[in-house]
Amino acid sequence: MRNLKLTLQYDGTNYVGWQRQAAGISIQGLLEDALAPLAGTHVTVHGAGRTDAGVHALAQVASIAFPAAHEAHVVARALNAVLPTDVRVLSVEEMPADFHARFSAVGKTYEYRIVNAPIVSPFLVRYVWHLPNRLDLDAMKRAAAHLIGTHDFAAFQSAGSDVASSQRTIHAIDWESGRGHDVPLVIRLRSDGFLRHMVRNIVGTLAEIGAGRWTAERMKEILASGDRSQAGTTAPAHGLFLVRVEYSTD
Amino acid sequence: MRNLKLTLQYDGTNYVGWQRQAAGISIQGLLEDALAPLAGTHVTVHGAGRTDAGVHALAQVASIAFPAAHEAHVVARALNAVLPTDVRVLSVEEMPADFHARFSAVGKTYEYRIVNAPIVSPFLVRYVWHLPNRLDLDAMKRAAAHLIGTHDFAAFQSAGSDVASSQRTIHAIDWESGRGHDVPLVIRLRSDGFLRHMVRNIVGTLAEIGAGRWTAERMKEILASGDRSQAGTTAPAHGLFLVRVEYSTD
Repeated sequence: MRNLKLTLQYDGTNYVGWQRQAAGISIQGLLEDALAPLAGTHVTVHGAGRTDAGVHALAQVASIAFPAAHEAHVVARALNAVLPTDVRVLSVEEMPADFHARFSAVGKTYEYRIVNAPIVSPFLVRYVWHLPNRLDLDAMKRAAAHLIGTHDFAAFQSAGSDVASSQRTIHAIDWESGRGHDVPLVIRLRSDGFLRHMVRNIVGTLAEIGAGRWTAERMKEILASGDRSQAGTTAPAHGLFLVRVEYSTD
Repeated sequence: MRNLKLTLQYDGTNYVGWQRQAAGISIQGLLEDALAPLAGTHVTVHGAGRTDAGVHALAQVASIAFPAAHEAHVVARALNAVLPTDVRVLSVEEMPADFHARFSAVGKTYEYRIVNAPIVSPFLVRYVWHLPNRLDLDAMKRAAAHLIGTHDFAAFQSAGSDVASSQRTIHAIDWESGRGHDVPLVIRLRSDGFLRHMVRNIVGTLAEIGAGRWTAERMKEILASGDRSQAGTTAPAHGLFLVRVEYSTD
């Protein structure tokens, strides 16, 4: 059986998330429904990251065992012809049989976007968290620095997760400055993997620190506590983008 | 009576255009409905450019005779509190009595955005014209150069216009290169004023030239003909942005 790698971009606004749900439209469901007539049978789509409802992707990766003979670029074109315009297949590639979008992934990059100004541009409002009061970016950056490296991130993991270990390694946290209502502040996190809601819980905590309610040092204490109730609220889904999935073959 | 200048940004996707219509929601209507409770009476909003249904604005300008005492920044905040998030008031300023958003304007800048790639990013699809086949940009630029200067633009004016003269002066046409599915080609036109559908009719004509169906030289003949039926189709509204309105006081 051929093994295909799909690279996908989507606006998560209208979807219940990556994974098929009992109710609502999922990205996985859309892709499986679009693939079935092409493949002549049901094809299960495995995603690298199970993005939540409202989360966006610039380059999600999925893999499929594909039983039909269509060339990879024909599969891409056929999918784009039937998918809604807020979900696009950027590329389809033939892969060795052992490639799996999720289990072969060695790292991921997420971006969280914030507009820190009194108003938000109409063109960004679906893609950023609006925090109108001036944030102390220096404090947020000092706090974030405590997270870099290998730690138990249990304090930033939401309930409902099924992972064996909550240890992860954050390789880098990069910042892009925002400006006014139409250039968002971007917080970019690169890790070997992320726990459920980990980026959004980290950003929720950074927002408390940026607002001056908590000190930057408190981030270290929250991390050490391993206690979800110590961290900040979960930042809204619509500011989050899955930006890149890394494989050892890259 | 105080005279206020409003600078506005809006995503035109969900609206029938700037001007109040018998049916549907207009930007002018939204603003007038939001201003009435604040002013305690109906306030007519005069826009600099009457953008059509689906056209966007990065900085539309409007003026109002405002009978109430609220400070300008309070008016801005009050409007943003009740307007939908796809329409934002960027600023409100006190102006001399003789300022009028439309009649005082001495120039306008519009941008038209095109994605010239097989697919369009989900984040751009509402804001660009998708032309999948490779365009000949050199030919388009040569054609556009014929339009710079003072000409009778009757060939690029759609029916239903009520202007006395179709003579206009295009000061500049600037180009920003596109790249792939997520960076649009931008055509930026600066003029002392634009006729009805003028930018979209020019872009529709440039698209024919870019596709190789017409020569660049034909632009000169179309302009000279003064005949709308010689020019290309009207490019879609959703690729068009009103970017700037100029006043002699700027």
